[in-house]
Amino acid sequence: MKEFNVLNKVKDYKNLYELTDEELSQLAQEIREYIIDVTSKNGGHIGPSLGVVELTIAVLKTFDPAIDKIVWDIGHQAYAYKILTGRKEQFKTLRQYKGISGFLKIKESPYDHFGAGHSSTSISAALGMRVAKDLKGKDGYTVAIIGDGAMTAGQAFEGLNHAGWLDPSKFIVILNDNQMSISRNVGAIYRYFNKIITNEVYQRSRQKFKDVIKKVFGESGAKFARKLEEYAKGLFAPGVIFEELGFTYIGTIDGHDLQDLEQTLLNVKKMRGPILVHVITQKGKGYKPAEENPTPFHGISPFDKITGTPFKKAKSKPSWSKAFGEALVELAEKDKKIVAITPAMKEGSGLTEFAERFPERFFDVGIAEQHAATFAAALAKEGMKPVASFYSTFLQRAYDQVIHDVAIQGLPVVLAIDRAGLVGEDGPTHHGVFDISFLRTIPDIVISAPKDWQELRNLLYTAVNSGKIFAIRYPRGNVIGEKQEGFEEIKIGSWEKISEGRDIAILAVGKYVQKAVETKEILKKSGFNPTVINARFIKPLDESLLKEILKDHKYIVTMEDGALNGGFGSAVAEYITDNLYSNLLLRFGIPDRFIEHGKIELLEKDLGLLADQMAEKIKRFLSQENYKVVG
Amino acid sequence: MKEFNVLNKVKDYKNLYELTDEELSQLAQEIREYIIDVTSKNGGHIGPSLGVVELTIAVLKTFDPAIDKIVWDIGHQAYAYKILTGRKEQFKTLRQYKGISGFLKIKESPYDHFGAGHSSTSISAALGMRVAKDLKGKDGYTVAIIGDGAMTAGQAFEGLNHAGWLDPSKFIVILNDNQMSISRNVGAIYRYFNKIITNEVYQRSRQKFKDVIKKVFGESGAKFARKLEEYAKGLFAPGVIFEELGFTYIGTIDGHDLQDLEQTLLNVKKMRGPILVHVITQKGKGYKPAEENPTPFHGISPFDKITGTPFKKAKSKPSWSKAFGEALVELAEKDKKIVAITPAMKEGSGLTEFAERFPERFFDVGIAEQHAATFAAALAKEGMKPVASFYSTFLQRAYDQVIHDVAIQGLPVVLAIDRAGLVGEDGPTHHGVFDISFLRTIPDIVISAPKDWQELRNLLYTAVNSGKIFAIRYPRGNVIGEKQEGFEEIKIGSWEKISEGRDIAILAVGKYVQKAVETKEILKKSGFNPTVINARFIKPLDESLLKEILKDHKYIVTMEDGALNGGFGSAVAEYITDNLYSNLLLRFGIPDRFIEHGKIELLEKDLGLLADQMAEKIKRFLSQENYKVVG
Repeated sequence: MKEFNVLNKVKDYKNLYELTDEELSQLAQEIREYIIDVTSKNGGHIGPSLGVVELTIAVLKTFDPAIDKIVWDIGHQAYAYKILTGRKEQFKTLRQYKGISGFLKIKESPYDHFGAGHSSTSISAALGMRVAKDLKGKDGYTVAIIGDGAMTAGQAFEGLNHAGWLDPSKFIVILNDNQMSISRNVGAIYRYFNKIITNEVYQRSRQKFKDVIKKVFGESGAKFARKLEEYAKGLFAPGVIFEELGFTYIGTIDGHDLQDLEQTLLNVKKMRGPILVHVITQKGKGYKPAEENPTPFHGISPFDKITGTPFKKAKSKPSWSKAFGEALVELAEKDKKIVAITPAMKEGSGLTEFAERFPERFFDVGIAEQHAATFAAALAKEGMKPVASFYSTFLQRAYDQVIHDVAIQGLPVVLAIDRAGLVGEDGPTHHGVFDISFLRTIPDIVISAPKDWQELRNLLYTAVNSGKIFAIRYPRGNVIGEKQEGFEEIKIGSWEKISEGRDIAILAVGKYVQKAVETKEILKKSGFNPTVINARFIKPLDESLLKEILKDHKYIVTMEDGALNGGFGSAVAEYITDNLYSNLLLRFGIPDRFIEHGKIELLEKDLGLLADQMAEKIKRFLSQENYKVVG
Repeated sequence: MKEFNVLNKVKDYKNLYELTDEELSQLAQEIREYIIDVTSKNGGHIGPSLGVVELTIAVLKTFDPAIDKIVWDIGHQAYAYKILTGRKEQFKTLRQYKGISGFLKIKESPYDHFGAGHSSTSISAALGMRVAKDLKGKDGYTVAIIGDGAMTAGQAFEGLNHAGWLDPSKFIVILNDNQMSISRNVGAIYRYFNKIITNEVYQRSRQKFKDVIKKVFGESGAKFARKLEEYAKGLFAPGVIFEELGFTYIGTIDGHDLQDLEQTLLNVKKMRGPILVHVITQKGKGYKPAEENPTPFHGISPFDKITGTPFKKAKSKPSWSKAFGEALVELAEKDKKIVAITPAMKEGSGLTEFAERFPERFFDVGIAEQHAATFAAALAKEGMKPVASFYSTFLQRAYDQVIHDVAIQGLPVVLAIDRAGLVGEDGPTHHGVFDISFLRTIPDIVISAPKDWQELRNLLYTAVNSGKIFAIRYPRGNVIGEKQEGFEEIKIGSWEKISEGRDIAILAVGKYVQKAVETKEILKKSGFNPTVINARFIKPLDESLLKEILKDHKYIVTMEDGALNGGFGSAVAEYITDNLYSNLLLRFGIPDRFIEHGKIELLEKDLGLLADQMAEKIKRFLSQENYKVVG
């Protein structure tokens, strides 16, 4: 790190005190360059992280993370925090297999006080820590830093509501506001007002004023004074919601003005009760391409540093998300009942074109998975055809609503489950490996997974016209295969025989159908010829085909991109035992542990889920039982 | 219904127009008496329902549920609504097997526009319906009626946030406020102010005033006028949070003043944009015992109408909830790290004594399951021993937080899962039958179920000292067995052999251990002697004992109070197939459909889960395979 003159001499946050204001500005600049360097190679959440460099420095100068608790919501904006809390060198391994995580992680560093990955948990977590400190009689501050987007999720409100009620001191929520989703007022008068309110002298005189009024007019006078004060705040500051929930609101602060930030936080430390500090930042700050185009730079794959253009593989196929969005547009052109719902994942879920083409039928509800599911159920109740898109891992947030509002009422919502299976660099908080298990136990839900592009289209077509609760799960990455013109209905619960073999049958789900074919090819070289089945419906099973297969094949293999516990293979195990079959079963999938981050192929290799590894294991499985021809 | 002079002549809500004010008051009185009559026999949510009788009449006089959509949050307060929408006679079958539901249910009546059972979904649902109406070009109002308690749940906020953004007209949220959990101001000045604001003349003059200011001062003048208006509202009404979220706030209204309610709703119908009407009601209104003691009368079992005392079975044992709470108090006396968390279920979860004894270690977070789980995780992170109590069905709301905040981080939270299994009269929205399946797929979680009172105590003792994420599930109803002094640690993952038999082994979970013993006794009469195992750990399985059992018993039977798909029996099926055993398996549990309401015994009979039914099925299972002695 030659050119980083200041960063090079900063070991960690403890050195921040030694720097002049100029050096601190220089440090911010160098941290930005370092973040751009690393993310241009490794990919990552560059936009959010560039936005909070000054805020990170100010927080680490004002609070001591060895004593105070700093909780970054989601945690993907904490790159500067990682760099300044002892992971300067390791930062180069960001998001790489065996490298450091793209999120905070309590197992990675003692300074990562609470991990995350999903949004809107920080206030709850910080409050728990605050309460624990109080119970243990320990000192120190607790600080949650949460984005404006994350504030739309119900859990953030639940946290505020509880915090306002408990009324803890040394409890600070920093609202990192980089968008327009919470109404914002910027201007000299606000900053001025805020400087007054955070100033100790004002705090003291405010109390004196109250005391005098109370003495002269009694309790009713105090009430009037409070009302008057509320009025003044309501007139000048936008924080009345937080005030009503019991927080003292401080805002707005320019999140790129280090001195102002530091002064505000120092003042805030002296105040009593829960405080909310409203900081205005710019996503991608300091990197032109990211400033000008914040959406793609929220989270990005490796890119050219100069132009800001992601490196593209030659002639790559569209992502599953894009293929989904494109198919939905085609279907929605002909069917006005189709509506699309996303919890703040318009781009990620491939719904940009849908939103442009059918704005009145497109609903981005913000980070609000619970609401999204119930809202979709209500649309279905009234005869619309809602397609609600969720990342598999975020669907966990809507689990109760899928059971309670969708399934119990039998309302035909299509659940388009994106990022199902291992997702790679985002790691354990984002792998979508539980959906099969947690959905399979819910009655009346169809669960499907396409093996390729056209099957995704056909399943979507089937789903929107089925009148059923219909989940379609598809992975991260680029589609397999090609698309054809138009759509074909697929009989619900029907599997597809990919190739006819003998003795051994491989039942594979989704993208693992391709792996099953590869595995078959490898096994063929050893003289085996397994039948390969595309188990495109996980629920209901294709019982008639399954019966046939169980009759004709002694050895059954299942392959899926999901948890073994309760997953598709588990459904097959249940079927075999419930029906007293004596077939032998070998199940491939995600074992009973959380899977780390890293490229999907590396993770799969670790888990023995590459085709050659599975072929080897199948051979051992066969030999174990003295493989005998059945047929 | 002899004495019900007015109610007798009212067929349904369409007759309300024909009644005089006096007759309407009389009707409210008679509906109350009818509700008291029926709930004293059937049990039910009498308190909430008595509180909204006038509100129900006013809503049904102002809106037409054949055109407008009325969504009652939770739905357990809708008894008067059911009586006035064509279910006057059927109401006598409330909550009984094959009778009408205690909640709203779209399959029960066309007037039940959206069902519920869990709280805080109504705004989301009503908004979906509003949007659907608009897309279809249909007229009519959409009304959500939500309690103040339900407002603490994040989903309610998500719904408000989205509604405020979409800004729909003819969209009305009625806040039915019967407690202190949202700050309340009652007084002549508020009612006066509210009458003005809901009055059409005022509405018109307000617009005129704005227009004049805008003409004279331009845009900035309009902004100032808006601020001034906000100030005026903030000073006189407590609704500023709703106003800031984009709602017009109207309040507060006396929810027992029929004429005032009706006049307000008529005025509101003429207003534009989303409206929130804040209505103050009294839980249990009109029935002394319920007014004086609202908590036990929220939901109650059959009681003496005169005294209000529930009928008690002679010398009944304590409930599982009470046994849990009592044990937790004993443990907390000696261990100051133990803290208890409940999402608004202090009484229901048996935590009343704990709250009284250790107020500083007791946290009722309101209806906020998501927050509860993350908050508990953070307490664990800081070295406390949090015991978070959830009803099984409500734990679904915290599913993501259990995975993301608790399990991924390996933070030792004890999940005390109450009301696991079938719960009886509350029906499909409340049966706790999915928890085994949805928890079993999560890595690093211990899942256990006690067979009796003392084992509950011992598991709790084991859990709080285990340093593990530890779920203990126990059912609704009274404990089985007795308690002893003190506590004993149970080896995690260890099963218990209840009786040694041969050929057949019954592996039973929780309260089904007792049923397994009964089943064994019945089978003995036919010459069979099954081994009975208390599978008190669902995860991890007791693999060493299981191996032994599989070696010595050809026929394996599992019994559990949970879904067959992915449940405990499924784990055993996985184990059998993964390890290439050839044992035959028969699984008892909840089949793949939603189970209706009714007494637990009746439901179990329907499902073939009574001991004699299971014994019969086991005999058929044995004969199917020409039962042969193994040993």
